[in-house]
Amino acid sequence: MTFELTQEYLDHIRQLIDAGDDVTLQAELGELYPADISGILYQTDIEPARYILNLLNKETGAEILANLDENDRINLLKTFSSEEIAPFINEMDSDDAVDLLNEQPIRVREEVIALLEDREQARFILDLLHYDDDVAGGLMQKELIKINVNLTVNACIEEIRQQAEDVENVYAIYVVDDLGKLLGLVSLKKIVLARKTAKIADIYEDDVVFVETYRPADEVAEVMRRYDLDAIPVVNVQQRLLGRITIDDVVDLITEQAEEDLQAISGLSGEVEEDDSIWARAKVQLPWLVVGAVGSLLAATVINGFQSELGKIAALAAFIPIIGSTGGNVGIQTSSLILQTLSDSSGLSVTLAKRLFRTLLVALINGLVVGLIAGLYTLLIGEPRLFFVVACSLLSVVMLASFMGTVTPLLLDRIGINPAVASGPFITTANDLIGIGVYFLIAQWLLAEL
Amino acid sequence: MTFELTQEYLDHIRQLIDAGDDVTLQAELGELYPADISGILYQTDIEPARYILNLLNKETGAEILANLDENDRINLLKTFSSEEIAPFINEMDSDDAVDLLNEQPIRVREEVIALLEDREQARFILDLLHYDDDVAGGLMQKELIKINVNLTVNACIEEIRQQAEDVENVYAIYVVDDLGKLLGLVSLKKIVLARKTAKIADIYEDDVVFVETYRPADEVAEVMRRYDLDAIPVVNVQQRLLGRITIDDVVDLITEQAEEDLQAISGLSGEVEEDDSIWARAKVQLPWLVVGAVGSLLAATVINGFQSELGKIAALAAFIPIIGSTGGNVGIQTSSLILQTLSDSSGLSVTLAKRLFRTLLVALINGLVVGLIAGLYTLLIGEPRLFFVVACSLLSVVMLASFMGTVTPLLLDRIGINPAVASGPFITTANDLIGIGVYFLIAQWLLAEL
Repeated sequence: MTFELTQEYLDHIRQLIDAGDDVTLQAELGELYPADISGILYQTDIEPARYILNLLNKETGAEILANLDENDRINLLKTFSSEEIAPFINEMDSDDAVDLLNEQPIRVREEVIALLEDREQARFILDLLHYDDDVAGGLMQKELIKINVNLTVNACIEEIRQQAEDVENVYAIYVVDDLGKLLGLVSLKKIVLARKTAKIADIYEDDVVFVETYRPADEVAEVMRRYDLDAIPVVNVQQRLLGRITIDDVVDLITEQAEEDLQAISGLSGEVEEDDSIWARAKVQLPWLVVGAVGSLLAATVINGFQSELGKIAALAAFIPIIGSTGGNVGIQTSSLILQTLSDSSGLSVTLAKRLFRTLLVALINGLVVGLIAGLYTLLIGEPRLFFVVACSLLSVVMLASFMGTVTPLLLDRIGINPAVASGPFITTANDLIGIGVYFLIAQWLLAEL
Repeated sequence: MTFELTQEYLDHIRQLIDAGDDVTLQAELGELYPADISGILYQTDIEPARYILNLLNKETGAEILANLDENDRINLLKTFSSEEIAPFINEMDSDDAVDLLNEQPIRVREEVIALLEDREQARFILDLLHYDDDVAGGLMQKELIKINVNLTVNACIEEIRQQAEDVENVYAIYVVDDLGKLLGLVSLKKIVLARKTAKIADIYEDDVVFVETYRPADEVAEVMRRYDLDAIPVVNVQQRLLGRITIDDVVDLITEQAEEDLQAISGLSGEVEEDDSIWARAKVQLPWLVVGAVGSLLAATVINGFQSELGKIAALAAFIPIIGSTGGNVGIQTSSLILQTLSDSSGLSVTLAKRLFRTLLVALINGLVVGLIAGLYTLLIGEPRLFFVVACSLLSVVMLASFMGTVTPLLLDRIGINPAVASGPFITTANDLIGIGVYFLIAQWLLAEL
């Protein structure tokens, strides 16, 4: 039932464009949802994409544009004049319109706003433009239905009728006082079932979950998830109702955040699609590979400094991989656990000291187990004098890596960097380097008799 | 505005429980949302949790139970008899009820179903019990409002009135024919605005996105996200309407999947909370640490096999870290890119051959850059004879790791294992081992004159 984009269909659409067969093209695209047409645009060049967009009605076009990825949208709209952009903006939800305009140069942005036929939309956009996109104000849309608490259900239905076109998903009607302060809400279901003459004041629910405009976006997502909300009203510091955030935007936000975390942990320095160019993909991989390489060459320098030890006991070199990889693995595990805690604000907050203490206890167990395994291996290869060197080094490396894995993401979070970065090549490389240093120092010290 | 759980509040609640002050306790908890009370239960022992749950009305209790994490819920309900569980199940949405019952022993499950006062709920549950929880059928709830296409808006409102208590969020009314086949839907907004005597047949939308019961859960999530849906109807192969999936469940699903991916990539073998015991945390970290250690000890065995080479050129040991970490980093990056492609089904599907070809081209660039950097370092430390050994090894390692990082997640996905596992310690360790082997073989071969 859902649309599946195939190469054949894509070729077919291209042929229709080349033939200029607008009638067939309109009929075929009319069968699709806007999100599916966005999918087609991803796979076509700018010119045919432009052609398709201009062929459709502005409302569908607006939805398609709202659906597109930021980069694709910027590239596509570069070929549009302000006069061409404005009609699409007219039809968009205000939050999507602001997202799109924020990607444009200031001149285009101002021209488009001046050109908007729908002056209410222009006002909505000007209201929203000054919010950062990572706070509630930057996520909200102005489209909502609100009603004065003193009115009746009948008046409310009249209000819905007037707003019906603008507000696609109503979810709930917000109830405000004469000053516009949010008092509560009435579900659409209640409106359907209520007597027409009933007072809103008698039927509305006054325990409503709301957010202030300045709340961070991830906090909004967490609140909506925790309380299973479809939409959340946004208020200013005087608790005046300014807009609402709908669940579809939060779903997109959660998905994006998960992708960003995955990228950061995997050491990719940006978003990249499978069909991007070879260079674009290399550019995303290289920065962290180079950082990792430089870190490892520092480790190489450390190892070179211990050539005399290596000369005496060649088997010392054999344990370089386990020291490096254990440090890296423990670092990733620990920082990932901290990440999880940071993203879940519903629990009790734990002090840093307590957190470190517990983490180091866990590290003690892990370090002893891994140290023992490697220690047994030294016996197996007939190098018993390395037992304590290897076991002690691994224990120290696990403890150090756990410490780093706990402190680094917390520090990064404090200074406003995505803490997931700390789980990636950065922490692996740092732990690799520290581990090698610790290993050779312990070797030098414990094997001092050599 | 949202509730923040503090240690003081928790102590306060505990005191009220110890004092047996039910009146104050009920009044204070009555101020909170069920999700917040779930938060309190996470921080209390079984006995007080049981006490709180029994103090509240069954409807609130049911919501709290539905909110709890699976493990906490299982532990808590162990102390409940079937007679005590049934009243909560009566009040739950059918999907939550089935999730809870599926965690219980078969005997308890059957007893509870037999004890349910609400026989419609019992029937709903029996309908849902046989679906796996990772397909659409396992996510859906039976609570929805459907109406025959031949009826009027008035009849529809009557239907909503009758179902009002069961269906908390209506979203849309589903339209079916005489056989119960899904034809389309009418939004609640349209019902509010329509004339009471209007025929449903004249106002319903017939282009409705639906899923079959057997569709995988992540496909459902992707469809709801792509089309910005609040709820999606679920049908059987004859297209008869069986239930619906609401967006809040999908939000939970997306969040869980993201957490699972993060765990898999970080080498954690299960879910663990910060306040779990030290042992529980070690148990989650140790499996992959041990696998990683064993892999590295295999690498150690390889290195030991080349002791004579190491004896002749001690500097060979210095490049063990860069070989290992570059292989690991490239493996994680590549498999993460594949993961991203696997989770985004909206794009065109690419053949494995084409995918590999492009990946290896990217690897060629990356390998040359990293190889050159390390090559320059050999000159810097006065070991020019290692230039080609190190550069060629790194190029090979990057190519091999890219190959492994592409093929492993695709293979795991094919055989039904979470492909994110392939981005974790597994691929790092494998690449580490392969890399070391390649490095020493190339060294032996290029330095044959030694």
